[in-house]
Order: sequence, then structure tokens, then C-alpha cells
Amino acid sequence: MENKNYLFPDFDKLIFGGDYNPEQWRHTPEIWDEDMRLMKLAHWNEATLGVFSWAELEPQEGVYDFSVPDAIFEKAEKNGLKIILATPSGAKPRWMAEKYPETMRTADDRHRALYGRRHNHCFSSPVYREKIANINRLLAKRYAHSPALLCWHISNEVNGECHCEHCRRAFVEFLRKKYDNDIEKLNLQWWTRFWSHRYDNFEQAEPPSSIGENAVHGLTIDWKRFVTAQTADFMKHEIAAIKEYSQKPITTNLMGFFTGIDYRELAKTVDFVSWDNYPNWELPWGDVGQASWIGMTHDCMRSLKRKNFLLMESTPSLVNWKDINKLARPGKMRISSLQAIAHGSDSVQYFQWRKSRGSSEKLHGAVVDHYGKEDTRVFSEVAALGEELEKLSAVAGTEVISKAAILYDWDTIWALQDMQGMQKNGKKYGEATHLHYGAFHRRGINVDLIGRKDSYDEYDVIVAPMMYICEEETAGRLASFVRQGGTLVGTYAMAQVNENDLCHLGGWPCGVLMDVFGLRAEELDTLYPEESVKINAYGEEYTAKDYCEILKVKDATVLGTYGSEFYKNTPCFTVNEYGKGKAYYVAFRDKSGTFTDKLIGEISADKKLPTAINGKEIPKGVTAKIREGAGEKYLFLLNFSGKEQTMELDGEYTVITTGEKISSAYLPLNGGLVLKA
Amino acid sequence: MENKNYLFPDFDKLIFGGDYNPEQWRHTPEIWDEDMRLMKLAHWNEATLGVFSWAELEPQEGVYDFSVPDAIFEKAEKNGLKIILATPSGAKPRWMAEKYPETMRTADDRHRALYGRRHNHCFSSPVYREKIANINRLLAKRYAHSPALLCWHISNEVNGECHCEHCRRAFVEFLRKKYDNDIEKLNLQWWTRFWSHRYDNFEQAEPPSSIGENAVHGLTIDWKRFVTAQTADFMKHEIAAIKEYSQKPITTNLMGFFTGIDYRELAKTVDFVSWDNYPNWELPWGDVGQASWIGMTHDCMRSLKRKNFLLMESTPSLVNWKDINKLARPGKMRISSLQAIAHGSDSVQYFQWRKSRGSSEKLHGAVVDHYGKEDTRVFSEVAALGEELEKLSAVAGTEVISKAAILYDWDTIWALQDMQGMQKNGKKYGEATHLHYGAFHRRGINVDLIGRKDSYDEYDVIVAPMMYICEEETAGRLASFVRQGGTLVGTYAMAQVNENDLCHLGGWPCGVLMDVFGLRAEELDTLYPEESVKINAYGEEYTAKDYCEILKVKDATVLGTYGSEFYKNTPCFTVNEYGKGKAYYVAFRDKSGTFTDKLIGEISADKKLPTAINGKEIPKGVTAKIREGAGEKYLFLLNFSGKEQTMELDGEYTVITTGEKISSAYLPLNGGLVLKA
Amino acid sequence: MENKNYLFPDFDKLIFGGDYNPEQWRHTPEIWDEDMRLMKLAHWNEATLGVFSWAELEPQEGVYDFSVPDAIFEKAEKNGLKIILATPSGAKPRWMAEKYPETMRTADDRHRALYGRRHNHCFSSPVYREKIANINRLLAKRYAHSPALLCWHISNEVNGECHCEHCRRAFVEFLRKKYDNDIEKLNLQWWTRFWSHRYDNFEQAEPPSSIGENAVHGLTIDWKRFVTAQTADFMKHEIAAIKEYSQKPITTNLMGFFTGIDYRELAKTVDFVSWDNYPNWELPWGDVGQASWIGMTHDCMRSLKRKNFLLMESTPSLVNWKDINKLARPGKMRISSLQAIAHGSDSVQYFQWRKSRGSSEKLHGAVVDHYGKEDTRVFSEVAALGEELEKLSAVAGTEVISKAAILYDWDTIWALQDMQGMQKNGKKYGEATHLHYGAFHRRGINVDLIGRKDSYDEYDVIVAPMMYICEEETAGRLASFVRQGGTLVGTYAMAQVNENDLCHLGGWPCGVLMDVFGLRAEELDTLYPEESVKINAYGEEYTAKDYCEILKVKDATVLGTYGSEFYKNTPCFTVNEYGKGKAYYVAFRDKSGTFTDKLIGEISADKKLPTAINGKEIPKGVTAKIREGAGEKYLFLLNFSGKEQTMELDGEYTVITTGEKISSAYLPLNGGLVLKA
Repeated sequence: MENKNYLFPDFDKLIFGGDYNPEQWRHTPEIWDEDMRLMKLAHWNEATLGVFSWAELEPQEGVYDFSVPDAIFEKAEKNGLKIILATPSGAKPRWMAEKYPETMRTADDRHRALYGRRHNHCFSSPVYREKIANINRLLAKRYAHSPALLCWHISNEVNGECHCEHCRRAFVEFLRKKYDNDIEKLNLQWWTRFWSHRYDNFEQAEPPSSIGENAVHGLTIDWKRFVTAQTADFMKHEIAAIKEYSQKPITTNLMGFFTGIDYRELAKTVDFVSWDNYPNWELPWGDVGQASWIGMTHDCMRSLKRKNFLLMESTPSLVNWKDINKLARPGKMRISSLQAIAHGSDSVQYFQWRKSRGSSEKLHGAVVDHYGKEDTRVFSEVAALGEELEKLSAVAGTEVISKAAILYDWDTIWALQDMQGMQKNGKKYGEATHLHYGAFHRRGINVDLIGRKDSYDEYDVIVAPMMYICEEETAGRLASFVRQGGTLVGTYAMAQVNENDLCHLGGWPCGVLMDVFGLRAEELDTLYPEESVKINAYGEEYTAKDYCEILKVKDATVLGTYGSEFYKNTPCFTVNEYGKGKAYYVAFRDKSGTFTDKLIGEISADKKLPTAINGKEIPKGVTAKIREGAGEKYLFLLNFSGKEQTMELDGEYTVITTGEKISSAYLPLNGGLVLKA
Repeated sequence: MENKNYLFPDFDKLIFGGDYNPEQWRHTPEIWDEDMRLMKLAHWNEATLGVFSWAELEPQEGVYDFSVPDAIFEKAEKNGLKIILATPSGAKPRWMAEKYPETMRTADDRHRALYGRRHNHCFSSPVYREKIANINRLLAKRYAHSPALLCWHISNEVNGECHCEHCRRAFVEFLRKKYDNDIEKLNLQWWTRFWSHRYDNFEQAEPPSSIGENAVHGLTIDWKRFVTAQTADFMKHEIAAIKEYSQKPITTNLMGFFTGIDYRELAKTVDFVSWDNYPNWELPWGDVGQASWIGMTHDCMRSLKRKNFLLMESTPSLVNWKDINKLARPGKMRISSLQAIAHGSDSVQYFQWRKSRGSSEKLHGAVVDHYGKEDTRVFSEVAALGEELEKLSAVAGTEVISKAAILYDWDTIWALQDMQGMQKNGKKYGEATHLHYGAFHRRGINVDLIGRKDSYDEYDVIVAPMMYICEEETAGRLASFVRQGGTLVGTYAMAQVNENDLCHLGGWPCGVLMDVFGLRAEELDTLYPEESVKINAYGEEYTAKDYCEILKVKDATVLGTYGSEFYKNTPCFTVNEYGKGKAYYVAFRDKSGTFTDKLIGEISADKKLPTAINGKEIPKGVTAKIREGAGEKYLFLLNFSGKEQTMELDGEYTVITTGEKISSAYLPLNGGLVLKA
Repeated sequence: MENKNYLFPDFDKLIFGGDYNPEQWRHTPEIWDEDMRLMKLAHWNEATLGVFSWAELEPQEGVYDFSVPDAIFEKAEKNGLKIILATPSGAKPRWMAEKYPETMRTADDRHRALYGRRHNHCFSSPVYREKIANINRLLAKRYAHSPALLCWHISNEVNGECHCEHCRRAFVEFLRKKYDNDIEKLNLQWWTRFWSHRYDNFEQAEPPSSIGENAVHGLTIDWKRFVTAQTADFMKHEIAAIKEYSQKPITTNLMGFFTGIDYRELAKTVDFVSWDNYPNWELPWGDVGQASWIGMTHDCMRSLKRKNFLLMESTPSLVNWKDINKLARPGKMRISSLQAIAHGSDSVQYFQWRKSRGSSEKLHGAVVDHYGKEDTRVFSEVAALGEELEKLSAVAGTEVISKAAILYDWDTIWALQDMQGMQKNGKKYGEATHLHYGAFHRRGINVDLIGRKDSYDEYDVIVAPMMYICEEETAGRLASFVRQGGTLVGTYAMAQVNENDLCHLGGWPCGVLMDVFGLRAEELDTLYPEESVKINAYGEEYTAKDYCEILKVKDATVLGTYGSEFYKNTPCFTVNEYGKGKAYYVAFRDKSGTFTDKLIGEISADKKLPTAINGKEIPKGVTAKIREGAGEKYLFLLNFSGKEQTMELDGEYTVITTGEKISSAYLPLNGGLVLKA
């Protein structure tokens, strides 16, 4: 296994399985044997057990019942099935809410929730922490040594906040620590002399509230950091209990671009990340944009730890919680699954094995329907993919290697959400990020989505779209990156505020970045959705929408100018040589992506970024992606274009599943190939 | 009066009257004599007294004042006016809220309301029940023997919920009874092992809440059933007090397709139903669809007890609570009133006699405006209709007889509202019902809207659109209906869950229905609003929207197939001979109604369903409707088409008001004729 | 200074300055000297100090710190800068909320707010009143005799309500006084016998609530009057504390057509009004309509006291709280500022001098940006305007004189907001007002916006659009106005209710107005937005939308009739000679303004209303406005048309800034001229 980075020391294949809730059927346990029979037919090698099962494991306080997992572990061992075992913290038993109401969450209007739904606990509650540690310890002790146990899965899609007094106290301590117990440091960073909001002491701090404070941005962003920190702290608390008995790897399932938690911080608590992917396939206007967006999401998840991940959940057919719950078309589930692997997943896992009979998810897609048998379209597609993945085992542990990175920060998400200014509801940080990502993606160029505080060492190109938050230290690191030969792309709204959303004095982009880019921005014009501005660059005319900054250029070379509005003929696109590198500045939002495509194309060529297929055109809507390791190289070709495609390759490849040698590829509608170079 | 089913033993005419609130004018009682003068001019024979008059009848706790009803009863007796006397429970006096705050309602967030508006009481409150019983007894005792008293009217448009502890306790008892005091029965039906929501005991049950549980569908639907049961229980409590002194018939005014209460259950508590009809006439795109919809609503109300009803409220001109409050055009109020009678009403009643001077309904239409005199368009139209109705007295007590029924269930309304799946906001059960209703209606075929648990004995055709909820017992009864020769039409989403919204194992339509229809449905595809799918049937091409089921046909004959999408050429429309009958299955939502029209036309011809006019075309937008009894038969022709119409009749008829004999009918814009066969 | 009405006895120039918050920078006081240097460059002669500075002035309860204002007053005196000193009641210090929670506001759901935001106090709280009186007294005592002090500015943009028990008690007393301590008077006016809402005594009164009463219009409108009265009472309380030590004039800054407070009542508490103007310039469809709307707003503010006012706030560039925060185009800030002066402002003031570094307004436009220097577009435009205003000093104290008035009442705003009827969300009282205003405005005719209870003595023409509220006394005063020779224009929905929203018996328009107009209105038809009705008048065809009343004409002369709908050929536009005057009635809403333009044109000519330029055409989008006094006359020409304009003048004028003599004017895009006749 040399040169491959397997996620598990004892498993060198792709994982194929998903969420399994046998406890819902404990009154008809004969169904468990039918499950085992069907899982074999489906080529499952894994089942995720225990998610939301607390009420089954501890039916009364201190009374435990492990009969369901005992039975399933036994069957799994017999059938060679691996178990990913979840801790049950995602939903509490009813008796706990009844006996310990303080374990419920308190909303931002300071009303405590009634028992219901899931993710319904206070993450600061000492009682809840005590209870979860107990059950985790018992689970770890009981199943640590089962040969079926593959790894631990903490909770489920952790999210949410609590505004109870326990949490407020913890927030006060968080602030005290961050601001060195000096309230005037906080007053300065939060700029509290505005509207007489000065704090006399830390004890006065309150979480933001819809019926209280919600306009002090320093408070709001620190509260979000606290929520991340407290969630991570709770996670560590859960993990510590398990580690007392088991050293198997730990993961938790994330939710892509979920904005409530800084996933970079949360990822530090686990051994590898996993995530739940529910794309919006089958939109009336096709899958091309969505495929690129989901590719970006996979890359973001992979970049959190620069490590392969698991696709912990996906649907074998449809979901039931969207406005429109359309069926996945034949083949779509397969290329969606292969896409995850192409971007670094070492698994394909589903939610859910078998549809529940009642409650809110009973109509969510599953491998086994209420119908109960295997002669369905969905079951057949799942089983066929299971068989295919067995043939692709060698891909496991190989990696995605990138020389380009896009900066993407939760701090900036939060600051732009709160920001009064620009288009209140049109800031679209994600879309601005994707505008640049897409230009790399359609060229088959691997790209990471990293945080501004991550290392820049392995990259030749860094793109920083709408990098509103940038403290002086980061500005210095970016300067250093360019000085040493890197290529940096910055855009409008760059580096206006520090990490606490406090404006930099002297203007923007802050400090040394004015030298790096050779300019400063003086004003930012926001357009109405129906307005646009002409852009002249590369000898062509492009179109700006939403935002146009007015620049004062000092040292930079002007590459493009505005072609309309009162700032007509002033610079909007520049490059500055700084040290051994180059810093581009794009002062406007590119409407259609054609300008950005041109720019990224030029930079990629200039920096010789590796592409999946050299010198050949990749058809629009086809993903071409490389995974490599241990001297092996795998090319994924996935057709999201909505029609069949034929394309030339840059050499001879072997189709892994058939052994066929090809130098041009035919891809039917929703078709995909995995090739060995 | 043989062979006519009069609602009142002592009244063989059509009732013409409406809501009358003399207590609002008690400081100027001379206006009451003016009212009597004007009522005579308007040909009123009835006034509905006492709605919302509690504060006048019991101005302080235990202090009673019947001077207003005393005076009005006396005047009514003198003037030959009948009184429908309402109980005052629709709005409580202010002193009661002050002294007994627990009589106010508690919202779903568990905050008790402040005094205000109407329908503001807790239906479980012992104090409120005691107080209403007292006042009802006093009213019954005082007016039971007045010759003016026609019947009792309980409360007004009863609706709403309460989440107080009294109500929670009653809910616990409701559940305990339903589930035989066995919590595991509840746990199974509500599928509470999902998300660890298992109940340890009934005491833990809580009403659903926006700040608590709202995703357990079994709970949600049982709560709605409890609200219906508790409303009916409160109604019975009111009625019992009256029955101590008076045996006159009892009614209450319903609100058509109001979804908060299962009106089939509520209707059981009264002798006959009445309802308040406020159509959306005068929409920019005309009245044709609305006329059909309102026809369906009348038929639903009539079907609740398969008995004539009263049109308890309607407006003589306009309402004041819609987004756009347009004037009814000349003649529109008349045909709208005649439409009610055509569908089974034995009255035309208005809200309101005289406009109130202040508060929220002061600009609602009334017979007498603030202007106060009779020389207005509205008064003239009312008086003319009153005169006409006197000539139509013989229609009273005749009936609407139907051989076709559409299943329409509140259980399914609730389950589809809650359902996660399909189009979240596009399930449109009512519209799906109307799609089928309209095809009968425009042919002049009478149709009932019955509940799935009602008797099917008198019908030849049963249509079950979107019959999502269908327990095995009902499935068996439907099978029996077909086996004995009936024609059944089922559609997509048929019989997926039992009465507790728990999915049937084995797939859908459940159990024996797979044999009845000769197929099973494997997947349900949901389309985006801008998408559609081609349908090939009857040698024509039709269009599906929203929903397309993929079928596995076993025994059925395929009558239609999909013409596009990945399920192209698979069956979408089938018929199965089962016993002596036929079962049609329509797997898609018909876009424009043209397919449904064709289908219902074929079935109607096949089953020889009686039509209002045989062998002649009914122009689009003209309602033709038959009432019959005691050997008499009345044909109503009502022109909602937005232009004048001439039509051939199927024989010679007499225009009742003029005595003219006609065999073809001319209907001006908004015109209507009542003919005797 | 004879014949000029200067706002300040000791200041005969236009004020140029704005909000200044040095306390935000107290940790870097060296910036204050830089401020003084830059203010001089910007030609500022005024700074508004102290807004929201309570926490700085009283950092702990009873501990005061005047070091910042002391320093600034000293610098101001040295630099010849005038100070407008604000009281700090707009935002309370945190310690006050902590120690006296009852000073926080209670929302309409009766939950007390947590500390946060601004305008966060209970206006009835005795503690809060005590605290604000203390700090006001200290400020007045300390700075009363500074030569820099120009006037006092109470609080900031006062607004909002409180529903605590203190406020409820005050409301009870308000009602007791209004209704002579006779609950039956209240019961009659509020028409509380509707829905059994009768009050037994005043103690039962509660503020309206979303969880209680919100449908009794008499209560709702009296509550709004109470909010105005209590706000005014609080204002008087603040002023009284200042008057103990200082007799300088008092103002407060209003918010144009803010609907929460009856500004006519509030204006009585101050010596002159000031207001904060944030127009929606730069909309994609141009500035013409907005310029007229803002002109109307200025005129409304001026009419509150029929006195010049201050433009207390405006932005030097952009705001940051709109959905789209677009840059003001070059020159736009200048003509926007000159427009305020043209309509009666004696100042141009900005929010804000220097951008705050943090919190919610950090990106709001300011004279000095975070960049900190004077070489910016915004600073240059500000400084140029400052220089120009110095040359326009003679304009200060001259006045705007109007012979036409439009009735505009907060009572009617509130009643129409609450009104159930017509188009629920399309009543558009403001738009109806502007329809008439615009016709005067584009002719360069000065017009006041007065309340129905104001004097009509100085006007020749009064327009009363949608005058829904009109008590009999006002009807009598209007009749008297016409009888004595005035021209009155009334419209649909005229005089339906009295001041308590109680309908007039006898129909509308009420009482003597039926004689004045020679007609009554019988019904009001409301149209759907996509509908319209033809109007025949002046030999032309016009279009009505939204509303068409059906009239019964008695004495009036019919000038126009409906051209479609069931009321085709009935009157819709009439005039009646009454005494020496004329009363026009327009029964419909004019769609495009062309009819209204014709009508106002005829009336203006008939009554010889003075225009800015006689006999010459004013191009569309150009404002022409006269200020006069002391024998001087100034003509403002402001080009909001979106393109350059050349226009003939009615004689020779002098361009004040250049001394040039012109008889035709050239106005570039966004250009403006101030001319002396």
C-alpha cells in the first residue's frame, strides 16, 4: 500500500454502504436477515449504525439495551460487512428533555424549545455532556474490538446554536480569553462607542438576538466563532470518551457549504472528514453548472484536511425535503457517485438503506423501498454500481493534487452576510468563488479551496475572490507569496476589514496589499440587477454586473478599463509585478464568466498548471479529473452535459472495468468512464 | 309536503334573510322599526339573531339583559319574520377574559393570547363551558316557544386550536383511548423510533408546536383529529344545554373547504349544515372556473349529511377582507344565490342586514348601507330576488340526487399538507379533485363529494383523486365496490399510507388495490412547474404536469403511455376488469383537463349517468342543474360564461316566474332561469 | 435682516456641516485636529455634536465625563465653527439597561427587548425620564453660553412604541381624558358592540397587539395618537430640562413621510423642524419621479410649521442600508442639496463627517473615508459645494410662498392602513397625493402640504386626495372655504368616516359636503391591478385604475363620464358652484397622471396661481422653484432629467456665483443654477 494514503489501515478498497437503522424494525427482527441478503445483492461492504438511536440504547435513564447493535454486529461479522458506528448525540431521548429541561436549546429570543425534531440539545449543558460521555464510553468499550468496526462517526450533521445562560456564560469566558480580559480591547475591536454601546465589563456580554443586539458586527462574528468553538469543544468531549476504549479513526459528516460552523476549525477535531452530498440534479436547465458547483464542494471538503474523505450520505434516487423532489434519471446516481470519488472520496454511501415507514423522512429515497424487494430500478442501479466499485478498488488511497488554490473563508461568509452595504441580498460570495473555480474546473485543472490562514507553500496560483476580511498578517503572507514568485488574483471588496470586521484605516486593499497590487480602490459602485457596465480588456468587450470599483492606480499596469458609466475609461483590470510574482486585480464582477475564463486560462498557461488531458479540448459539461498515487494515475470522465459526447484523449488509456484500450472516449448521456493512464 | 325533505317541519318555503345585529344600535332603537319596514320591502322572511352578542346578553358576570332579543322577537312575531337564534360563543365578553384568563386561547408557542378579535376561547376550559351552558340554557328557555323561532345556530364559523394545559390533558386522554392505553401501539403507528422520538408513556404527549415537535406526521394528524373531536365535543356541550328546553333543529355555519376541522365529523353533531359562501367572482379572467369550484363546494357541504342545507351567509354586494374587494356586477348576486339553491340550499341568506358603523367589518357589503335608504342598486337587487324566491317556493325540500361520487377526505388534506415529498407547495389536492369534478359539472351530471368511510351503495362511479391515505379496510371496501359492478378511478399517489400516515409495506396502491387496478406504482416523478411530459391516449396527445408515476402493470389493460422522458412508452393510463366492474388508473396529473374530460365523458356514457339536459350541448360556463322530489323536477340554468348564451333544451319547460313555455333558453350576461320540467 | 425669517438670530448664512462623532475616536484624539483642518478645507461652518453619546458623557451612573465635548467646543470656538448640540436620548448606555430593565421597550407581544440597537427606551419610564433630564440639564448648563452653540437638537429620528405597563397606564389616562371619563362615549366611537368587545371601564384598555386586539379601528387609531402624544410629551420633558439653562432654539430631526408619528403634532414641540433626506437617486429608470417626490417631502416638512427648516442629514455619496447601495453620480449630491434649499431649507448637512470603523454604519457615506485624506471625489464635491453655498448666503431666510395646498393627514394614513376594504395593499395614499402634487410641481407652482385642521386662509386652491377621514367640523370648514371663493378638489373615498374611523350615517362625502360637491357616492368599485376603466373628459379618453366610484349627482355639472364597465356613461368627474367657489369631484384614480395634469392646469390658470417662470415651458425633469423675501427673489433651476437641457427664461436673471446675466439657461446632466431675478 505504499504511496497510497488509505483512510483506514485495514481497508484498501472503496467503501460502499450507508445509513442503516435496524432499530426502527426491532418489532420485526426477521427483516434484519432479509437486509443481510439484500445487502449482499447490492454489493454493500459497509453499514453505518447507530445514528439517532439513543432512545433505543438507553430507553430509560441509566438503563441500557444493546440488543440491536449486538445482533447487527454479529451478523456483520458473519457477512464480512464493516460497521461505521455513530454516537447518538444527534437526537436525545424524550425522558431526558422531561427530566433535564436545561438540555433543550434556547432560541435567540430566549425561549427554550419544547422537545422535538433533532439536533435539539444545548452544547454547553453539563448534564447533556455527562450523558453523552456515558453512552459513548459504553459503546466504545462494547464494540472497540469487533473486527467489523471500521471507524467512529460522531453525531450527525452537527449544527445549531443555543442561547441559554450556560451558553452565555461560556461566551463571556470565550470573549474574556480572546480579548486578554481587557474590555477596552473588545470595545475598540467592536467599535462600541458607536450608538453608546460600550461595555463596562465582560459580564455584560449577551449573544446576539432578534429582540436585542444584532447590529454590532464585531459581536455577531465573535458569536459565530464561539458557536464553532463550542461545537468543536463538544465534539472533543464526545471523542475523548471514545478514545478511552477505542483508537479507531474518528469522523463526522459535514454539509458542504453549510455556513453555521467554520468547518476548517471543526475538521481539526477529527481524523478525516466525511460529508453528505445532495446535489440539485435534473433542474430544467441542465446539470452543467451544478456539476461544477458540486465539484467545488467536494474540493472544499477535501481541502479542509488536504486528505481524502468519505461521501457519508447521498441518495440512491431522490430526496423528499426539496421544493420539487424529482427522480434522478437513469445513470445519474452513478456519475454523481463517481464524481465524489474523482474529487477525493474513498467511498460511496447512501442515506438510507431502507425507507422508514413513518415520520418526516419516510418518502426519502432508499436502496430498499417500502415495496421491500430487489426488482426495482433503484436497487438495480445501486447493485450495478457496487459491482463496478469492486473493480475500481485500486483507486482507493490515491489522491487529488492541486497547484492552484482559491481562498474561501467562513469569516468572510459571516462578515458579508452581516455587512450593511453593497447589494444587501446579492453579495453572493459563493457564486463569486465559483466563477473562478469553474474556469479551472472546465480545464480539468485540480484546485484546492483553502483558508486564508492555511499554508500557501504548495501553490503556484492563489485566487482571492471578494476577500473582504483580511488582517494585516494575512496581507503580509499574501505579499510574501507573490514576492516569492506566486501569482495572486484579487477582486473588488478586497481586504476592507480586519478579522473583527473593523475597517482598515488608510483605505483598501489594506496595508502592504496596496503595494502588491500597485493601486488602491476609492469607491465601490453597486448596480441594480437590471444594470450592467461595459468592460474593455483583452481587445474584447465584456460585461460587469453588480459591482464596479473605482481604482486609483499607482504602479500597476492597466489591462482593462470600464467602457461605460461615469467612470468610463478608468482602470478596472490590472496586473502588478511584485518581487518575482504577479498580482492581478479585477475591480468588477464578471457577468457571464467569459472574462474570468480568459484570465484563468492565461494564468494557467503562464504558470503551466497541470491539466487532466493535455492539449485536447474537454467538451462543455464533461468533468475530467485526475487521481494519482503509488505511481498510478486514474482519469475520470463524467458526462454531465445532458447529451452524448465523444472526445479525443491525450494518449492511450485502459478502461478499468473492461480492460479495453482507448484513445478517444465515447460518453453516453449521463455516462462516465474511469480510465487508467 | 310528501316526498319533499323540508329542513323545518313548519316552513315549506325558501328562507330569505340573514345576519341581523340590532344590539349594535341599542342606543338608537328607533332604527329597529325602520329595519322592519325595510325588511318587508326586501321580502325578507328570516333574520339571524344573536351572533357575537354575549356582551349584550350578559353585560356583567351573572347579570343578564335580554331586552334587545325580547324587542326583536316581539317585532318578528308581529311581522311574520322567522328568527334563527345563534348562541353567542363565537366571542366572549371582556369581563370573562379579565376574570378567567384561562378561557383565552394559548398559541402553539405556548403563549396565551390577550383579549381581542373573535373565536378567542379555549374549547377545553371548564369555566368557558360552564358559562356558555348557562347563557344557552337561558336563551333556550326564554325563546323556545316563540312562534318566530325557526331553529338554533351554534356559535359562528367555529375554528381554531388551543395549546393550553387543559387541552394538552384532553389530548393525552384522546390518545390513550385511541391507542387502547398501549403506548407501543402509538409508537408503532407514529414510527417514533425514527430520530429517537419514542414515547415512554402517554403523559409525555404534547400538541405539535413551532418551537417543538412538528415533523412526526402521526402526531400531527392525530392532533388535527383531536381538534375536530374537541370542537365537536364543545358543540355537543352547547347543544345539550339548548336541548334541555327546546327541540328545534340545530345547525352551525361551516366555511366550505376550510381545512382546520374534519367537517364530516362536525356535521354529525347538528341536524343539518349551513355554510357561508364568499366566491371570488369578477376575477379578471372570468367566472367559469370559479362557478365550477363553488358548485363543488356546495356539493361538498350537501354531501356532509346528504341533505339540503342553508346558505347561511353570502354578500349582497362585496366583501371587505380580500386583497381586492370588487363590486359584484348587476345580476351576479342573483345567479350566485340561485346557484346555491340549484346545488341543494333551501335558503339565501346574507351577511349582513345593515353595515356596522365601526370596527373591521364596517365596509363589508350589506343590504342596507350607512346611507340608510332603499334607493340603492344593492337594495333593489336584494328586494327583486326576494320577490322571485317567493315564486320559487315549490323548490324548497326537493333534492339533488347523484349517481357519481368523488372521494374527498380531510385526513388526506392534512397528510398531504404535512407530507415531505412531491412538490412541497404544489400538491394541490383540491385542484386535483376539481379537475374531475369539473368534467361532471360541465355535463350537468350531479356528483357528491363523500368521505372514504361513507357508504358507496348508491353510486355507480367513484373517483378517488390523489387518495394518499387509504387504510386496508377502505381498500377492501373499494375492491368490493368494483367487484359488484362499480367503476372506480384512481390516480397517482393512491393508497400510499394508512390512516396514521404510516406507509404500507409492499408498495402502493396498497394491498388488494394492486389486484383491483392490476398494477403497482414503483416510482413517482415530480416535475418542475416549467416542465411537462407527453401523454398518448385515446389516439391523441395530451400533456402531464407536476406528477408522473412509473407503473409496473400486471393484469391491467394499458390505455395510454408516456410520450417523453426516460419512462417514454411505459404505461400511464390503464383499466382493469375486476369482478363485474372496472378500475381505471391515471398515473399522471392532467395539465389542462382535456384528458380528464375525455375520461369522465366515456365513463359517464358507459354508466349512463343522468344529465341535466339529455342530448343537447351545454355552453361552456353555463351551469345546468336538476333538483327533484315529490314528482317535480326543476332545471336551473345559470350563465357564468361572461357573455349572453342561447341553448336548446331537451323538451318543453315552464319558466316558473313567468309561466312562459320554452324549449330553448336565452340567458343574458349573468342571467339565470329556473324551469319546471 | 428685515423681511427675512432667519432661523437663528445670530446666523444669517446657509448652514453647511453635519453629524460629527469625535467620541468614537477618543483613543486617538490627534484625529480631532485633523478634523478641524479638513473641515476648513470642506468649508464647513457647523458640526452636530453629541448624537448617541450618552455612554461617553455618563460612563457610569451619575459619573460624568464632558472631556470630549469640552475639547470640541474649544476647537470650534477657535475655528469659528458652530455647534448644534444633540441630547443623547436616542441610545442608552448599557449600565442603564442592566440596572433599570424597565427602561427597555416592551414589544407588542408583551416581551421586553434585550439591550441593543438604538431608540430602545420606554418613553413613559420615570427612571429614563429622570436620567435624560439630568444629563440634558448638565449639557445645557455647561454649553449654554458658548459662542459656538447654535441650537439644540433633541434626540435623533424619534420613533417607536412601547407596550409595557407604564405605557398601558398612560394610555388608559389618555383615553379617559379624550372620552371625558365616560366609557360609553368610547364604546360608541369604537363601535365596540361589534363582536362583543364592549368595555366595562377604562382600566380594561390595552394597547393593540399581534397576540390580542388588532381589528378595532377606533382603538388602533387612538393608540397611534397616544404614541404621538407620548412622544411629544417625552420631547417636552427633554426640552424643559434644557430651557432651565438655555434659550437657544430647539429642533429635532424628522424622517419625511414616516408614518409612526403625526409630525404635525410633534412639530409643535420644537422651534423649527429639521429632517433627514435619503432619496432613491440613480434608479435604473431615472430621477424625474423621485425628484418630484422628494420635492413633495421637503414641502411637507416645511409646511409642518410653515417655516424654513434644516436639512439635518443627507449623504455625501451613498448609504449602506438599502437593498442596492449605489454611488451618487457626479453632481447629484450638489443638485440634491440645492433642491432642499429651493424648497425651504436653510442648511445642507451630512450624515456623517467621518466613517466609523466598525458596527452597522461603517460603510455609510461620509465626507472623510477610512482612507482619511482629502484627495477623493467625494471630499472634492463637498468642498466645492461648501464654497458655492458661501456665495449663496443671501438666500438664507428667504421663503417659499404657496397659494395652493394639498391636504395630507396622518390620521388618514393610519385609517387607510387599517382599513379593511378597497385594495388591501394598494390604497397608496402617498401616491394619490403625489399624483396631484406632481401636476403643480412640474409647472413650478409652489404648494404646501397641510393638515385638514390647519388654516385654509392663505390658499386659493385646496386639493383633498383620498380624504377618507373628515369629521363634520372639517367638512364645515371646507364648505366655508369654497363658499368664500376657494377651489376645492375632492376624490373617491372622500369623507367616509369621522376622526375615530366611525362611518358617517347618511353616506359619503359626509354632511354638508354633499351640497358642496352636489352629489353623493353610492358604491366604490375596486379593480384588479391588471384592469382599467375608460374615462371620457375634456374631449379626450383617459384611463382609470384601482378605484371607480359610482355617483348619484344632484346639483353638480358633469364634466366626465365612465367609458366602460357596468357604470358606463355615468358621471365620474364633476364640478359644482357653491357660494363664490367651485368644488371638483374626481371619482376615479387617474392611471398615468395625464388627466390630473389637465385638471390642475385648468385650475391653476383659472386661479392664476404664481409660477416660477411665466409663459415659458419648463422641460420635464427640471425643477424650477422660487424663494423670496426682503424684496429679493431667487430662482432655482435643477436638472433631474437625466440629460442636458436648455430652456428659455421669462426675463433676465443673474447667476449668483458668477455674476453672469442670462435670459436662457443651459443645464448639463445633473446641473443646477441659482439665479437672482
